[in-house]
Amino acid sequence: MQIIHSEDHRLQDVPTEFYRGRWVEAFETPRRAELVLAAVQRAFPGPVLAPRRFGTAPLLAVHDAGFIDFLATIWERWEAETGPTPAYPNVWPPRRSRMIPTTRPGAELGRYAIDMSSPVLAGTWQAAQSAADCALTGAALVDAGAPAAFALCRPPGHHAGRDYFGGYCFLNNAAIAARAFRDAGAARVAVLDIDYHHGNGTQDIFYACADVLTVSLHADPVQDYPYYAGFADETGEGEGAGCNLNLPLPWGTGYAGWGDALSRALARIAAFAPQRLVVSLGVDAFEGDPISRFRLRGADFADIGRRIGGLGLPTLFVMEGGYAVEAIGDNVASVLGGHMAARG
Amino acid sequence: MQIIHSEDHRLQDVPTEFYRGRWVEAFETPRRAELVLAAVQRAFPGPVLAPRRFGTAPLLAVHDAGFIDFLATIWERWEAETGPTPAYPNVWPPRRSRMIPTTRPGAELGRYAIDMSSPVLAGTWQAAQSAADCALTGAALVDAGAPAAFALCRPPGHHAGRDYFGGYCFLNNAAIAARAFRDAGAARVAVLDIDYHHGNGTQDIFYACADVLTVSLHADPVQDYPYYAGFADETGEGEGAGCNLNLPLPWGTGYAGWGDALSRALARIAAFAPQRLVVSLGVDAFEGDPISRFRLRGADFADIGRRIGGLGLPTLFVMEGGYAVEAIGDNVASVLGGHMAARG
Repeated sequence: MQIIHSEDHRLQDVPTEFYRGRWVEAFETPRRAELVLAAVQRAFPGPVLAPRRFGTAPLLAVHDAGFIDFLATIWERWEAETGPTPAYPNVWPPRRSRMIPTTRPGAELGRYAIDMSSPVLAGTWQAAQSAADCALTGAALVDAGAPAAFALCRPPGHHAGRDYFGGYCFLNNAAIAARAFRDAGAARVAVLDIDYHHGNGTQDIFYACADVLTVSLHADPVQDYPYYAGFADETGEGEGAGCNLNLPLPWGTGYAGWGDALSRALARIAAFAPQRLVVSLGVDAFEGDPISRFRLRGADFADIGRRIGGLGLPTLFVMEGGYAVEAIGDNVASVLGGHMAARG
Repeated sequence: MQIIHSEDHRLQDVPTEFYRGRWVEAFETPRRAELVLAAVQRAFPGPVLAPRRFGTAPLLAVHDAGFIDFLATIWERWEAETGPTPAYPNVWPPRRSRMIPTTRPGAELGRYAIDMSSPVLAGTWQAAQSAADCALTGAALVDAGAPAAFALCRPPGHHAGRDYFGGYCFLNNAAIAARAFRDAGAARVAVLDIDYHHGNGTQDIFYACADVLTVSLHADPVQDYPYYAGFADETGEGEGAGCNLNLPLPWGTGYAGWGDALSRALARIAAFAPQRLVVSLGVDAFEGDPISRFRLRGADFADIGRRIGGLGLPTLFVMEGGYAVEAIGDNVASVLGGHMAARG
């Protein structure tokens, strides 16, 4: 299993998060990636690859140009007005608003943010670009013949939409890789998102797209983040009608129910007959996760990997969520190991 | 000048506000209303009236039913999940979201909020209802023959839209009063908003309405809150086309430029020939205001009142913003005094 990782992720580092009206210890921390890296290095000895640099063209293939310009420039504008304090939005567009740019960095933050989880810091843009480059490097390795690769991306990506960021995500690493697979010649690409939280950004990016199937298993948005998308009746639109499958599951779901949903997901992917698979790999369906409410056990993750491997598809794994830090590394390694075992 | 006020405003009281990435001392405080009350009592001796109770019907005439239900119930739901901490949103709907209700109070907060300025507290609903009742009581007094009345509302209202709250506002007191004037028989009503900040909620409520003219003088939204509305090309829609006049002005505007805009506003109102006028009375165009950048001096406010009085319309003044607390009372009293002098 080829592993791609950049230490630039450490540039995205805040001690606290505003959560249910209070500042609490941050859930999404550099330590998460460090523990995953240590675990996958133990499991799969060999060099960890640094990302190649792909520039902004692959980002612009899935993200709005104004949004990319915002991410690249907002810190300087914010710091000039506010000083070197993390850039958090405190105002955002009411419904029915037009999208007229303003001269104020705080207003631009609110225009593009979807929550308070993801402050822009001095190094955010560099960290986000490096994470996207990890995913693109992994995609290139798979295109070059690797049966699978693991892009240990941080910040994660699946909540970042065409023109919004949040949920700890700035650039949608999985979507960027999926689009790169298409642009490198794959006629059809599937994205399977097994993070506990709905991949709302990925859905948004490919919602009208017939050549990228998006499938997500996640907590019912009536009960959990990201709340405003992820419902079963969201199936795509226009040319993409039928190419989005949401499998929302209730709090308390264990591997029996989760595994049934995975069967539906895998059957849908097999029917789509893609040439490439991207897996948005969150491991927060784990029973010990502090902000999630599914009940998967550690042993389930190897089985998940085996079953995904059963598709027989060249596969890029892209790191997303998982906040039970003591277990996150083993759970990720188990998925990857299961996948390798299935691919033989 | 009849003055209507309720002490329930004290139920909305937080020490700090999240502003440009930091918690700062709150700008919108109970002391504001106390100082305005003291100043207008000095200027206009006589009893201060308590509001009559009007119930929810007049609120539902301008606000979405789901929004009113949200305001009435969110505190209990929030407190049950989170405990008695102020209810702040930390997540909100991305663009292109559907509006599907969730079971989570935090998600519902984000659905209806437009910023971080306005936490819901245990007494917020009572405070907001009493402020709306002040406006409705004032409207009834004007309908009963008073040439003018002053509803000393707090929380303020003009940033509250059909189905959103923020900018310290929960219910749109001015819009509720304007609609009550209509329902009591006025064929046409005008709302003149002289607060430094655009009355985005009032515009939203009456945007497709031909019988309520909305006119606002305010800081250019390219430069200042509420950022996402208040542009000169927003003139109304449908039956309301032509019935919204925005007069955005740049930072640094003094009374020369501001007074020219007021002339345009008054001419437009006179041409509309309304039977009633509601004035959203913010005094944050004052040069000493801590969060505003116009340069009106204290002496200008009496002239503003005189010029509005020159319209000769039965007028309800509704308190909105103004954060230079040492001057806010005198500036409000000056507007009201100027109006009384003009009406004779």
